Amino acid sequence: MKYFLSVFLFTPAVLFSQINKETFYYGKDYFIIEGTIIPASEKESPYDRLPASYKDIVRKPVWDLSKSSAGLAIRFVTDSPYIKVKWEVLNNSSMNHMPDTGIKGVDLYYKNNNEWQYINTGRPKGFKNQYTLIENMSKEMKEFKIFLPLYDGVKNIEIGIDPLSSIEKAKKNKKQPIVFYGTSITQGGCASRPGMAHTNIISRKLDLDVVNFGFSGNGRMEQPIAELISNADAKLYIIECLPNMISPENITKRTIPLVNTIRKNNPTAPIVLIDLFKTPKSILNDNSKRKSKAMDDALKTEFEKMIGLGYKNLYYVETPKIIDSDNEGTVDAIHFTDLGFLRYADFLIDSLSKLDLLD
Amino acid sequence: MKYFLSVFLFTPAVLFSQINKETFYYGKDYFIIEGTIIPASEKESPYDRLPASYKDIVRKPVWDLSKSSAGLAIRFVTDSPYIKVKWEVLNNSSMNHMPDTGIKGVDLYYKNNNEWQYINTGRPKGFKNQYTLIENMSKEMKEFKIFLPLYDGVKNIEIGIDPLSSIEKAKKNKKQPIVFYGTSITQGGCASRPGMAHTNIISRKLDLDVVNFGFSGNGRMEQPIAELISNADAKLYIIECLPNMISPENITKRTIPLVNTIRKNNPTAPIVLIDLFKTPKSILNDNSKRKSKAMDDALKTEFEKMIGLGYKNLYYVETPKIIDSDNEGTVDAIHFTDLGFLRYADFLIDSLSKLDLLD
Repeated sequence: MKYFLSVFLFTPAVLFSQINKETFYYGKDYFIIEGTIIPASEKESPYDRLPASYKDIVRKPVWDLSKSSAGLAIRFVTDSPYIKVKWEVLNNSSMNHMPDTGIKGVDLYYKNNNEWQYINTGRPKGFKNQYTLIENMSKEMKEFKIFLPLYDGVKNIEIGIDPLSSIEKAKKNKKQPIVFYGTSITQGGCASRPGMAHTNIISRKLDLDVVNFGFSGNGRMEQPIAELISNADAKLYIIECLPNMISPENITKRTIPLVNTIRKNNPTAPIVLIDLFKTPKSILNDNSKRKSKAMDDALKTEFEKMIGLGYKNLYYVETPKIIDSDNEGTVDAIHFTDLGFLRYADFLIDSLSKLDLLD
Repeated sequence: MKYFLSVFLFTPAVLFSQINKETFYYGKDYFIIEGTIIPASEKESPYDRLPASYKDIVRKPVWDLSKSSAGLAIRFVTDSPYIKVKWEVLNNSSMNHMPDTGIKGVDLYYKNNNEWQYINTGRPKGFKNQYTLIENMSKEMKEFKIFLPLYDGVKNIEIGIDPLSSIEKAKKNKKQPIVFYGTSITQGGCASRPGMAHTNIISRKLDLDVVNFGFSGNGRMEQPIAELISNADAKLYIIECLPNMISPENITKRTIPLVNTIRKNNPTAPIVLIDLFKTPKSILNDNSKRKSKAMDDALKTEFEKMIGLGYKNLYYVETPKIIDSDNEGTVDAIHFTDLGFLRYADFLIDSLSKLDLLD
């Protein structure tokens, strides 16, 4: 009898403490997915960037890169004292000038008095990853956002919380999104972590959705992408394709058709053309300096042609000249680091604001 | 005869153009090595950070980390129209929150009107690496500096130039060096490339030598390192050990002995104690906030004890509070990115300047 009493007295407490220790994980029914204009029902995976129907429409490298979750984020509200995350990536790839945290890590922010505040980064170890992002928090409801990998895809992601806490979807952002189309830099190369790609910085600073159609090496002003983004109810379009245009001739050939196609379905949203980011190599490399100028001149010429033809809501933004910077913002004289991305995001917000495009 | 004539006429030209195409590589007799206070003759390798005699004096992890070339740089003058580099690293290691470019890459700067100007980074591929850093330059003499890997050692490095150009050692910097002793952050974790560790940024901005005794996970105010740096003809000492002190008790136990040992051989050079860098996790994590404060309090107490005892040229610097920053400067809530390093370098220069320590 004494034995049974002991069991009776102690079992519930033991059970309770075990339950209390075991994290409960919640999947995509418990958060919203942001940074996409394509309904999940039209995609192979909710974390893709292109509709399934585009598989045979875009070139293979563009399709493959569209599986990277650059610009996507998940958002939820919870009162859990801790937040863990499990995520599985598609390719488990690496690069020698961008850390794995940026390529395939996840980045936790929380909303602190209407400002998005960085908390911590989930550091990836392989295809399947698990990380404790924060613990020992007070138990009131808080809103969190997790930015997804920039150069890898997400097969699955789940949020781990205390079993005695609740988690629910955050409210959707009602503002019109900004749509970016561009290159490896647009895709976030080489941010140290997903939150530091300029498109994600801008989404936080302006508190709106930003959609990232950056395709590393393949942001070439192509018609299928122009068609796709023309259907977006966009606040504005930012075209950052120049680093992938290879020659001034391609710019001459493709800029007006790109704008025309966007205009087919979206006759009014502002379209902002960004010139070539300046490389510090061009300070000393005379060929590089000449080529850079020829690319900018080609874009400027097409822009002025369109203005002459009466195109409306079209803008050309000159990025800072090499002489106006300490040139410390890249990892390889081309791709931005967090430093370059933050500077560029601030520059872009300032430029768009001066053009009255952010009201 | 005709055959021989042809050979005679064409051979020299062919030979000449082949010679002209073939890069000549120059080793350590053609550049100076900066960022070290230990003569090469006392080291196992000129790119080490500790004397050979310290192998049995320091703990093994400290010795192993001293093989990483953090803070070391090579400097030379050349009129070559291009600069290539071959370098071999010791461990070929990787981390998931710092790119290989920072761990084991090399970083080219050139002196542009007395300012050090970033040009490009050698991206590593393995143990043996080769990279063209810049080409198509005008052919006048220019001064270049290459920062060496932060988290790997250099077995050998050679500069490749045009065979018709010359290369020679740059002039030594005559100013007294600043000596840093600290942790993984001091060692440059997690800069995207070697030039962006704060010690290297400070060396460029102040145009003086900075010596980096950052030992990842092992910057623990230890006596052998204190002994070593006490022999330096230092302009000042910066002690950044707090993140590796584990507990306030260790700080209480080791701070005054550290200062006393430095003072044995260097009775006057300013010693600057840096408090704990603030982690964004501490905004929400109450335990982390408490622990951070206890660490700072322990250091402050030891500092005030020493001031009370009449110690001279001793300073305590409080790094920015979490509330004074957007907290975007780290990759993992602890280690600085280029953004965090540049901000911290600027903060430190400003703080030292206000303390009149930079005259």
